[in-house]
Amino acid sequence: MSDHLPLIAAVELGGTKCVCLLGSGPDAIVDRRRIPTGAPDETLAAIEAVLDGWQAGSRPFAALGIASFGPADVDPRSKTWGGILATTKPGWEGTDVAGRLRRRYAVATGFDTDVNGAALAEGRWGAARGLLDFAYITVGTGIGVGLITGGRTIGGFSHAEAGHLRIGRVPGDDWPGACAFHGDCVEGLASGPAIAARLGRDPASIAADDEVWPLVAHALAQLLHNLVLTAAPRRILIGGGVMQAQPHLFPMIRAALGQSLNGYVTLPAGEFVQPPGLGDMAGPCGGIALGLDARGADPSDREEEDVRHSA
Amino acid sequence: MSDHLPLIAAVELGGTKCVCLLGSGPDAIVDRRRIPTGAPDETLAAIEAVLDGWQAGSRPFAALGIASFGPADVDPRSKTWGGILATTKPGWEGTDVAGRLRRRYAVATGFDTDVNGAALAEGRWGAARGLLDFAYITVGTGIGVGLITGGRTIGGFSHAEAGHLRIGRVPGDDWPGACAFHGDCVEGLASGPAIAARLGRDPASIAADDEVWPLVAHALAQLLHNLVLTAAPRRILIGGGVMQAQPHLFPMIRAALGQSLNGYVTLPAGEFVQPPGLGDMAGPCGGIALGLDARGADPSDREEEDVRHSA
Repeated sequence: MSDHLPLIAAVELGGTKCVCLLGSGPDAIVDRRRIPTGAPDETLAAIEAVLDGWQAGSRPFAALGIASFGPADVDPRSKTWGGILATTKPGWEGTDVAGRLRRRYAVATGFDTDVNGAALAEGRWGAARGLLDFAYITVGTGIGVGLITGGRTIGGFSHAEAGHLRIGRVPGDDWPGACAFHGDCVEGLASGPAIAARLGRDPASIAADDEVWPLVAHALAQLLHNLVLTAAPRRILIGGGVMQAQPHLFPMIRAALGQSLNGYVTLPAGEFVQPPGLGDMAGPCGGIALGLDARGADPSDREEEDVRHSA
Repeated sequence: MSDHLPLIAAVELGGTKCVCLLGSGPDAIVDRRRIPTGAPDETLAAIEAVLDGWQAGSRPFAALGIASFGPADVDPRSKTWGGILATTKPGWEGTDVAGRLRRRYAVATGFDTDVNGAALAEGRWGAARGLLDFAYITVGTGIGVGLITGGRTIGGFSHAEAGHLRIGRVPGDDWPGACAFHGDCVEGLASGPAIAARLGRDPASIAADDEVWPLVAHALAQLLHNLVLTAAPRRILIGGGVMQAQPHLFPMIRAALGQSLNGYVTLPAGEFVQPPGLGDMAGPCGGIALGLDARGADPSDREEEDVRHSA
């Protein structure tokens, strides 16, 4: 399939590092560069140096996709589209990312949050292929939810932030949670830093039979319950560092979700809760998916359609 | 605007009564009939008698819209589209509603849940006019949420059931809730029957300064918090019998929502939480909105475009 797709420059802009890919899909990566995320200007200049090189090469990119940490302005009709909004990350608030790169390269440019990009990548190439309604959740430093409904990322006045949903607690557990805004929201109970704050240890080092895991699984299952009853996704994928280090959480989450729904709805046949199909590549490939979508939405930019390559 | 719209036959199929409207909008109702909801066959036959009369009259309807109690199969690609799914309502499980009426009248036919219909009506004529992303919530016998994203009702393997979201509790309040499936989900804490079960009195008769209302407002605000962070609606409308009888809940819910979000997102300017603009007519007009949408989606059925009327 990738043979017929144009070459995309993809940027995953993360809190600590940026991954730049030139390619048309997870099995068709032409080049890959890693840049530490520092101050905005030096980081964007380093990204531009990489993209300039690609654009001057023998196989220039036909579109650009940027999957960014948030909060970000992802509304194409907004004047500040493509920029970083209020953030605790020093210097980045108000930084224009996608507008700057779009002006420089004059190609169709997609911009969304990192988790929405990863979800779109899972929908194109991963464990949600062919589905129009699904969710991708990452459980790591934070908890992010990429919710796809009718084939599109959900969003209205802003992008989703469903890692911060309000949920019920396990009876008798009154630990106040670690979210600076909400205390015991999902992220405040089940993110890596929340687990570390509760136990005083690195979550990756905690044994699978520790009594914290049923509490974490419960919080994540409550998030899944709420996603199921809000959007009725046909599958939910859960990735991120905590899930990778503690895969025993999967059966615990599935059981807790079943208990929570209590027969109220019948979930679709097959394994409803799965790890992402692209693994670590879901995030970086998000930019490629966003670039392909942007190109699809902008038919005026199709003259490059014959720029194909052998994967 | 209604002058330019075709005439729609609308059916609001409720648990205790059906409202049938012939019209093209809330200000252009040509006829209105009320039928008690009994056994499926007699109820549908009574609806057909009304619609037969309209169809044989001088101004036949160009499309049909049905807003039904749930759970219902609202997936147009499903073999059982237009039918009632597993329900506690005697005899109705498996009843084909919209398919039967579509075959009989051979016009474009829309079918969705009552609360989704009401949301679409509020988007066309009510307090969400012009918005593509908003929610309509009814708080009455149950709690239903019509969530519109990108101008469409949300849904994947099923329609939404966000009245049953899992939420946090007010510290110290450990009443187990009244939902038969989930105990203390939103509906289990804040619906009319839940309030009645907690206090042993009709909610309409409870004084505005009763200490139950902060608990109810808290539960509803947690639902709103979750809708805001999942779908970022630009406005949330709350109607239904409980809200109509206890309008003092509005400022309580707004305050509790602000406390719960705690500055994490900036809500759109203007009054974010409002009563529905159509009041009691949101539900019945839902069928008209669904009929208009179905007609818009089926251009083969446009030969009736010149059937206009003076409102």
